[in-house]
Amino acid sequence: MFEYPARIDRLRRQMTAAGVDAALIGLGPDLEYLTGYRAPALERLTMLVVGPDDAATMVLPVLEAAHFHPIDDRVIARPWAETEDPIGIVARLLGDARIVAVTDETWARFVIELHQAVPGLRLQRAVGLTAPLRIRKDAAEIELLRAVGACVDEVLAAVQSGSIPLAGRSERQVARDVTARLLEAGHDTVEFCIIGSGPNGASPHHEPGDRIIQADEVIVFDIGGRRAGYSSDSTRCVVTGSPPPEVVEAYAVLHEAQRAGVEAARIGNTCEGVDAAARRVIAEAGWGEQFIHRTGHGIGMAVHEEPYIVAGNPLPLAAGFAFSVEPGIYVPDQWGIRIEDIVIVTDGDPILCNATSTELVEV
Amino acid sequence: MFEYPARIDRLRRQMTAAGVDAALIGLGPDLEYLTGYRAPALERLTMLVVGPDDAATMVLPVLEAAHFHPIDDRVIARPWAETEDPIGIVARLLGDARIVAVTDETWARFVIELHQAVPGLRLQRAVGLTAPLRIRKDAAEIELLRAVGACVDEVLAAVQSGSIPLAGRSERQVARDVTARLLEAGHDTVEFCIIGSGPNGASPHHEPGDRIIQADEVIVFDIGGRRAGYSSDSTRCVVTGSPPPEVVEAYAVLHEAQRAGVEAARIGNTCEGVDAAARRVIAEAGWGEQFIHRTGHGIGMAVHEEPYIVAGNPLPLAAGFAFSVEPGIYVPDQWGIRIEDIVIVTDGDPILCNATSTELVEV
Repeated sequence: MFEYPARIDRLRRQMTAAGVDAALIGLGPDLEYLTGYRAPALERLTMLVVGPDDAATMVLPVLEAAHFHPIDDRVIARPWAETEDPIGIVARLLGDARIVAVTDETWARFVIELHQAVPGLRLQRAVGLTAPLRIRKDAAEIELLRAVGACVDEVLAAVQSGSIPLAGRSERQVARDVTARLLEAGHDTVEFCIIGSGPNGASPHHEPGDRIIQADEVIVFDIGGRRAGYSSDSTRCVVTGSPPPEVVEAYAVLHEAQRAGVEAARIGNTCEGVDAAARRVIAEAGWGEQFIHRTGHGIGMAVHEEPYIVAGNPLPLAAGFAFSVEPGIYVPDQWGIRIEDIVIVTDGDPILCNATSTELVEV
Repeated sequence: MFEYPARIDRLRRQMTAAGVDAALIGLGPDLEYLTGYRAPALERLTMLVVGPDDAATMVLPVLEAAHFHPIDDRVIARPWAETEDPIGIVARLLGDARIVAVTDETWARFVIELHQAVPGLRLQRAVGLTAPLRIRKDAAEIELLRAVGACVDEVLAAVQSGSIPLAGRSERQVARDVTARLLEAGHDTVEFCIIGSGPNGASPHHEPGDRIIQADEVIVFDIGGRRAGYSSDSTRCVVTGSPPPEVVEAYAVLHEAQRAGVEAARIGNTCEGVDAAARRVIAEAGWGEQFIHRTGHGIGMAVHEEPYIVAGNPLPLAAGFAFSVEPGIYVPDQWGIRIEDIVIVTDGDPILCNATSTELVEV
């Protein structure tokens, strides 16, 4: 479906422009983007070596070799047996290359071993080369993001409809139901399932635990998974019964802030501008100190990727940028609320990948 | 339950003996072992800085801060806000330290950024310091490995009993059932669920897909998860109906090889000796070329950790070593078989953490 050789050609052009001799693409979304291969995160080295030659080489464990399909004569496989030294193989493939870019998620182990194996190696982050390739989603990618967004919407709509029982059950029990629903709705994998009830909602990345959900409290659902290589990520809050008046008031502010962020996702604006648009609403209402994280993150093959919607990022928005808009308000030990949609920048209005109600639904 | 300060003291003694000024413990099992904190794998830096001072410092994103509980005055928290530079914080904590050890799973991004921020930094792998701490499981850890082994056994016994329908369903459908059962059996998370039917069994790390399981074929189940921080990992094969005669013959060899590997897990032997004990049986029967991976890997907080049971590893076995014994025979495009138990070395007979039948059960 995707033109992997064309993607590798674009990487090579980035490398030439940046004066980089070779790129080492370890585990992670860059590898999948460039070759279609999603490698398991293991201590055995998997690494695509993109050097000056025409062909790139996928160095991978022999027992994973069946999962990787060489791409014509453009990406060839070099499986290594259990008693071979994969770092030596990479070092030989690098040849005289000295300015070498490495993807962010590569394990430190391999960076350090390469430093020891190849004297004079000058390593730099590859993200400056790969992010420009991935940051603007093409039409096929946008369809995949919309499709996986519809999958997560199906589950959040079920939560809002009350069809998943909440009060009286533990977060963990609810998380199991939600995980099963995410798979039934069409995700290939579930990547995260944050269910924060009552005071646990005040921790943005709360892990579902044994706390029993009570009546009249807010529960944050921040859930997502992958389908056909692309990620979903959406957050909604529901309340079991009647919310405390303070929460109702804060939620109205949050709701306005999230809409302001989505509305700001337009060409002519910047990443930090989107952050500011949402943050301003919350700060002006007096909740600024309770909004403790950036407004959003890019999304695609990775759940978190460029562009980051954060103060200090002056990157201008461009058509095809896909990112979350997810302001939150958190009162430690009491409650937390967050609303999150994935938006895609276009030449006109932003595309919203999520369509469930953004109201604080009572269930 | 665990004495984290004592563990950090042991790390410091390793550091002193090795002439290491500081250790940087990034995401991964070392961090959890030393502090009890399991950090999410994110682009935001989480790193424990263990320097010469009495207190170690956990540098972590402010929005994760609620999940980490400082340990007396021994491990203090340094949360960083979204617009702070966490690498600068680590660099300041390092002070004059120049010989610095980094854990294997730390992202390359942070290693490269630290290199740029701290001129003259000499990084080395921390595994030489941390593996000796973790490689010998204590009594509490052994109980946890046995308990989580019993959880995975419950699911494999269900597979062997035929209570999970196989023939006529896709690997993916079966994987969903197995995933649910792993959680019901007491795992906190499912870490992997390899279900390889017929020819897919020939790929040791096959991902369950849309292939429909047929009659009279072998299916490899290699599954595991985590409970209370410790990992399970066990493999059994079942056959839908009657196995091909070639498989019956090979399975008898494999069965003997796996028992030989378990039997070799004794003090006085080495890691490569255990590998050789299993491999010899398979090689002598003429299947040596079809056993394409090492015999096993250590297990504990990580599914794969030291000691690795592989040719070339002369490490003598010691009481408390916990590892898999999992020989396999793979005929590409036709079938594959593997048997895996977790064993723990003691002063006497090895402890087996798995107890389901190792026969090729017909379902």
